[in-house]
Amino acid sequence: MPDTQTLPSPPATVVAWGDPDRRSLRLLDQRALPQAEVYVTVQTLDALVHAIRTLTVRGAPAIGVAAAMGLAAVAAREPALTHARLAELAEAVAAARPTAVNLRWAVNRLLARAAAERPEQLVAALADEAQAVLDEDIAMCRAIGEAGAALLRDGMRVLTHCNAGALATAGIGTALAPVYVAHARGVALTVHADETRPLLQGARLTSWELQRAGVPVTVLPDGAAASLLARGVIDAVFVGADRIAANGDVANKVGTYPLALAARAHGVPFYVCAPWSTVDAATRDGVAIEIEQRGRDELALAGDRVVLPDGVPVFNPAFDVTPRALVTHYVTDRGLVEPPFTS
Amino acid sequence: MPDTQTLPSPPATVVAWGDPDRRSLRLLDQRALPQAEVYVTVQTLDALVHAIRTLTVRGAPAIGVAAAMGLAAVAAREPALTHARLAELAEAVAAARPTAVNLRWAVNRLLARAAAERPEQLVAALADEAQAVLDEDIAMCRAIGEAGAALLRDGMRVLTHCNAGALATAGIGTALAPVYVAHARGVALTVHADETRPLLQGARLTSWELQRAGVPVTVLPDGAAASLLARGVIDAVFVGADRIAANGDVANKVGTYPLALAARAHGVPFYVCAPWSTVDAATRDGVAIEIEQRGRDELALAGDRVVLPDGVPVFNPAFDVTPRALVTHYVTDRGLVEPPFTS
Repeated sequence: MPDTQTLPSPPATVVAWGDPDRRSLRLLDQRALPQAEVYVTVQTLDALVHAIRTLTVRGAPAIGVAAAMGLAAVAAREPALTHARLAELAEAVAAARPTAVNLRWAVNRLLARAAAERPEQLVAALADEAQAVLDEDIAMCRAIGEAGAALLRDGMRVLTHCNAGALATAGIGTALAPVYVAHARGVALTVHADETRPLLQGARLTSWELQRAGVPVTVLPDGAAASLLARGVIDAVFVGADRIAANGDVANKVGTYPLALAARAHGVPFYVCAPWSTVDAATRDGVAIEIEQRGRDELALAGDRVVLPDGVPVFNPAFDVTPRALVTHYVTDRGLVEPPFTS
Repeated sequence: MPDTQTLPSPPATVVAWGDPDRRSLRLLDQRALPQAEVYVTVQTLDALVHAIRTLTVRGAPAIGVAAAMGLAAVAAREPALTHARLAELAEAVAAARPTAVNLRWAVNRLLARAAAERPEQLVAALADEAQAVLDEDIAMCRAIGEAGAALLRDGMRVLTHCNAGALATAGIGTALAPVYVAHARGVALTVHADETRPLLQGARLTSWELQRAGVPVTVLPDGAAASLLARGVIDAVFVGADRIAANGDVANKVGTYPLALAARAHGVPFYVCAPWSTVDAATRDGVAIEIEQRGRDELALAGDRVVLPDGVPVFNPAFDVTPRALVTHYVTDRGLVEPPFTS
């Protein structure tokens, strides 16, 4: 049973209403991290699209929540909102990042709710639905945290990759949710975070939020994780997932698969933490998951410095696939689940 | 037998005499790569120490050669060189990077040669000995290349880590020597190079020299190498070594060990290429190898940009240890050798 007296708060408020009337959105500007903690207020359609497009808000769950609340806030400022105008606003928001599944899902959910409402009730209905999206995301994180915290004991040393933390959600994250729940209960934990090339989400974001939450955190190059595992100083690996196939194969940030191989080589459990909605029962296995290739500049530039000769191409996949056999447990908001998965 | 008609030249001249009288040293300034190809001429003790200390020249073999030739050149400019003055110069050069074994070894070799010479013969003797150090380094690389080229077939796709190439030696490198020898013989090869965090030697140096040599090269984040191996598009992994223990355990740039694990998981041969002098028979196994920890700034800064929150510590080992069981062959200037190694 959840211990309501020790429920952890997120280390930062990633997405929130900007005012009591729910006519604006407040976002933590993740582009400024870790150097500065800056919040931006969104009141217009252009500002909302810009914030999503420029990664002011990132992480699939957080993007979905920001889209829902942002759409509701923008709609509330329309002089005389109609269903037709709402459809226009919704399409513009959904198009901000075409490949973000949670974005489209959140927008469609608000449209579905709006369909049954009279025009004069639209604004309130949208705000209520957006609030539900927010509440459910927070609850989803908490449920993953409860399920995963049962795997953590006092003194355990956790290794994680990328950022599947509070900054990627409206709540306490996915892969880091068990850490926050256990920490709130007084379980002493330490975390090692891969810096996570090329975009350094581990260095920039994971270490920031864990430090803020008071969880001791150390950052390492991705290639040094196997050294830690070999030294016997890691007790468990916790990672997130971008998609989980029916057979249990996991697509997650590139670098996850070699981490799983190293964990297996040293007998360390490897836990994948994700909302149940990440399971894609229509995808049979990892081979069927298309892997996005990202741009050359992510490897060619270090800050403003050119570190790659002109004309040298890159292999820069966003994700890799960890086979089911390397996963010890799948930790979801439905508890620990085991493949094969059906919808 | 070496095919003398197709001996490859190094893609760049890392270290050379600066003039026919061997009174100066010419170094490729590796700090300027890959953006610019800049050469510096060294004529004074201060300039030599500065060049070694600031990594104008890097890679253990190249540092040793530069120290020997630089010491001979600086000594040649002394008004009336004595053994006592030579000893002073030698100590200053050797102290430029205290932990560089090849540096101390090269300086001691020149001192040993000088011991038997009269003062008026010192300058010529030092230059001859330095030339021998250079020639032997070039021959060592070539011998590794010949031994390793026998492992390469037309169309093979090679993966490498860090820079154990021409830029780390006075010749054609160690891990890349087989590639250059095979390439010179008309064997078509492609290379994938890990960018190699944190110092990006793969992106900055390995890709530069391979591109210059006309070998197709693609750069990837370290964490993406396992994806390539899983896709079946890599036929062999070639890496260098910083130290090889008596039992065959290999210390090399951090990230080598997870690469060896991934190669084994996918049945891809893993070759360690190094001069025989890298074998340290006095070190029983990898556990006995002390691993240098490097500074926080290597992870905290991307160019000039801060990417790590203040107060977050790092785990930043320079090397890791790959166990003997994961190494398919040891490729040395004595040919393919097998542990246990004795001196």
